[in-house]
Amino acid sequence: MRASEEEIQELATALGEKFTTDETTIRPYMRDQSWMVPEGTPIGAVFAQSAQDVSTALKWANAHKVPVSVRTGGSGLAGGAVSYADGLIISLDKMNRILEINPENSYAIVEPGIINEEFNRQLGLEGYFFAPDPASASIATIGGNIATNAGGLRAVSYGVTIDWVKGLEVVLADGRIIHTGSKTIKNVSSLNLTQLFVGSEGTLGVVTQATVKIERLPEHEPYTFLASFDSIEDAGYATIAMRDSDNRPVSLELIDAFTVDLVNKRHPDMQVPQPGAALLLGQTLGENAEEQANTMAELCKEFGASETHVEKGNDLLAVRRDAYPALQDAGMPVIGDVSVPIASLAEVIQGIEELSQKYNRRVAIIGHAGDGNLHPIVQCGEGLEESAAAEALLDEIVKMAIEPGGVISGEHGIGYLKRHDLPEMLSQDVIDVQRSIKNALDPNNILTPGRKVY
Amino acid sequence: MRASEEEIQELATALGEKFTTDETTIRPYMRDQSWMVPEGTPIGAVFAQSAQDVSTALKWANAHKVPVSVRTGGSGLAGGAVSYADGLIISLDKMNRILEINPENSYAIVEPGIINEEFNRQLGLEGYFFAPDPASASIATIGGNIATNAGGLRAVSYGVTIDWVKGLEVVLADGRIIHTGSKTIKNVSSLNLTQLFVGSEGTLGVVTQATVKIERLPEHEPYTFLASFDSIEDAGYATIAMRDSDNRPVSLELIDAFTVDLVNKRHPDMQVPQPGAALLLGQTLGENAEEQANTMAELCKEFGASETHVEKGNDLLAVRRDAYPALQDAGMPVIGDVSVPIASLAEVIQGIEELSQKYNRRVAIIGHAGDGNLHPIVQCGEGLEESAAAEALLDEIVKMAIEPGGVISGEHGIGYLKRHDLPEMLSQDVIDVQRSIKNALDPNNILTPGRKVY
Repeated sequence: MRASEEEIQELATALGEKFTTDETTIRPYMRDQSWMVPEGTPIGAVFAQSAQDVSTALKWANAHKVPVSVRTGGSGLAGGAVSYADGLIISLDKMNRILEINPENSYAIVEPGIINEEFNRQLGLEGYFFAPDPASASIATIGGNIATNAGGLRAVSYGVTIDWVKGLEVVLADGRIIHTGSKTIKNVSSLNLTQLFVGSEGTLGVVTQATVKIERLPEHEPYTFLASFDSIEDAGYATIAMRDSDNRPVSLELIDAFTVDLVNKRHPDMQVPQPGAALLLGQTLGENAEEQANTMAELCKEFGASETHVEKGNDLLAVRRDAYPALQDAGMPVIGDVSVPIASLAEVIQGIEELSQKYNRRVAIIGHAGDGNLHPIVQCGEGLEESAAAEALLDEIVKMAIEPGGVISGEHGIGYLKRHDLPEMLSQDVIDVQRSIKNALDPNNILTPGRKVY
Repeated sequence: MRASEEEIQELATALGEKFTTDETTIRPYMRDQSWMVPEGTPIGAVFAQSAQDVSTALKWANAHKVPVSVRTGGSGLAGGAVSYADGLIISLDKMNRILEINPENSYAIVEPGIINEEFNRQLGLEGYFFAPDPASASIATIGGNIATNAGGLRAVSYGVTIDWVKGLEVVLADGRIIHTGSKTIKNVSSLNLTQLFVGSEGTLGVVTQATVKIERLPEHEPYTFLASFDSIEDAGYATIAMRDSDNRPVSLELIDAFTVDLVNKRHPDMQVPQPGAALLLGQTLGENAEEQANTMAELCKEFGASETHVEKGNDLLAVRRDAYPALQDAGMPVIGDVSVPIASLAEVIQGIEELSQKYNRRVAIIGHAGDGNLHPIVQCGEGLEESAAAEALLDEIVKMAIEPGGVISGEHGIGYLKRHDLPEMLSQDVIDVQRSIKNALDPNNILTPGRKVY
């Protein structure tokens, strides 16, 4: 039931200018970058500037059972931040400060709205960095990383967001503000609430502050290597070998031939070799980075790479960062996010190609090969029929990837888009356990209802 | 209320030889290695051989509201596995198999009863290892690591248990058997239930199987370095510098002068230099291990070390592994487990020394300096008065360590022993959130009641 005008006025009075019902202001906050998630018209939006603002908003929403969507940068791909009909939007994009950088104790405290690149720029001035590095680092926020447990380009060596969060300030559904975790390196003084909130996609609480690990920037420049493969199977075996080597690269990305061609067209300056099947693109760090990159390139040759290239610096990573925007521009907006055991990588990629042929619909593949995390990206024209066909194909891909022990999301989250795939991989008992935890923390089910945990 | 003889008979019938009420058999399973936790006489013990056995036992205990203690190796130091009066013991020490070692996908599946050393011995045969490495690796089990989120000697580089667990089989309080996580490297398909169970000390469910990450054993032998300091403050600054260096060691342990003397007396063969204040003992891995160990030794000299020594291999680590047994033999059984921000290490060690003088009671200090995790170990004679005095001193130490942002447990857990310290560091709201999650998963409060979450 929609909150009454009088009730909405209560909220407006409590939050003043930080609350708005102005449609033009609200519109950009109703969506993330997900494809085909229907947004609802909310009663208004809160532009929070503090945990207290969030608490005020949630107390109100909880009292009136108003569904809440939470949004920071809006770069999400699963519809987790899309607004609800008659719901309330809480935007955290104004909460974008770095509150503390503490090199001695290897942590920083940030607000959720800070953009990854900006955070790393400021850390860099002091000689430090934050390792999780989503491909969308120029627009994605730390709050979004935490909501989805984002991975990114450096996950092969550095892991994912959950490995980098030490503590959180969280506003619960009823407005209580809690602090989890600590500034220490080790801590088992409570249940692992911090790790429970990371990746919960806004369903258990609203994160208003995070204490994250930072690391000293490596003294030496990174090296980037690439290897062209004419066979996906060979690229798969080379990936396993590189992961298993003593000197694992920090990044190991796969970009298929179709996508390499698209990116080359966007970057006439940066012609990378056009592979027959796929390109592997990796990065090494540390004092032996050059030697290590050369070793990885050699290893790729042993596994059948037709051409390899090694160079100093980060420039080549643009091939990967630009891949999804290039595909979107080419009419391929529907992105999947399956994650599979590394040894099944080649088999799953081949399976995707077979399904693409069967459905007569192009599927490009980019992904974090070194983590077994693939993003199949499906061609889709205008109209409902096209959408339904693209979605049906993506569903088939997901089912096929689950077969060898894969999962339906590696880093983008479940959100709204992948809910219907969940019963394929979670037992009813696990679904019930998730619900019982959700219910314990949000009994009125106001926080991002019907998504992730449903 | 004690279960009736008839009810106990039901359980005996269901489990056959896997259930016993024989006192002599049960006695060793009533305790862990914690100091001064009163055990209760249970109605019996289940020696589970499968998740199904655990499920049968828990369904029964849940129906009759019988408190359950869960025990694997019994090396715990916080009383988490101590038996309850009229309770049921579930022992998992018979469930000690390695079910799968999968090098290609970098995981192994184990039962909880397997001992750390044995697991690593078998992994070693295939060229792999499991990184978490409690000092008590010769008696501690993987199940115990998971229950407490154990750290250990390699945590500086490799993190703690939670960083190494990919998925779990868990039996819930009502007997439901669930599977969390996956065999993939990345997975955000559900709430982070795996990470919630890790470190929950038996309060949320009984882990009957774990899928853990494994890594290829480094090709080169490790190097071990030690450095004698006459000033704790200098050792503290050297620790910060080593952690912050580009080539951080894998291990970085601190052992105070008193303990070094004790260990030297036990190992006439292995005379390590007697420091004025403390020894730092570290290890480096990889192809540059020797160079790196020498760099660390040099760095220690720059920070005031009076003597340093570097050698190939693991032998010197015995100084650290033998430290707690040597202290126990010397009448110092009361062990603390505070974890503090690295930059506060020296200040907290000095604070411990001041409290030791104030209370006129010896406190030895060993710890994982590189993680800021200190184990102050308090002298204690026979009798209640002695115990009370030792405990009062440890409580003071804990309060002092919380001051600069420290926590009351870094790796041993809260269990029974540290419950009373919790309100010093957790807000009532966090305590309530923990309770609500506990209640959602174990509404009859049968699993390790009154410990960790209380």
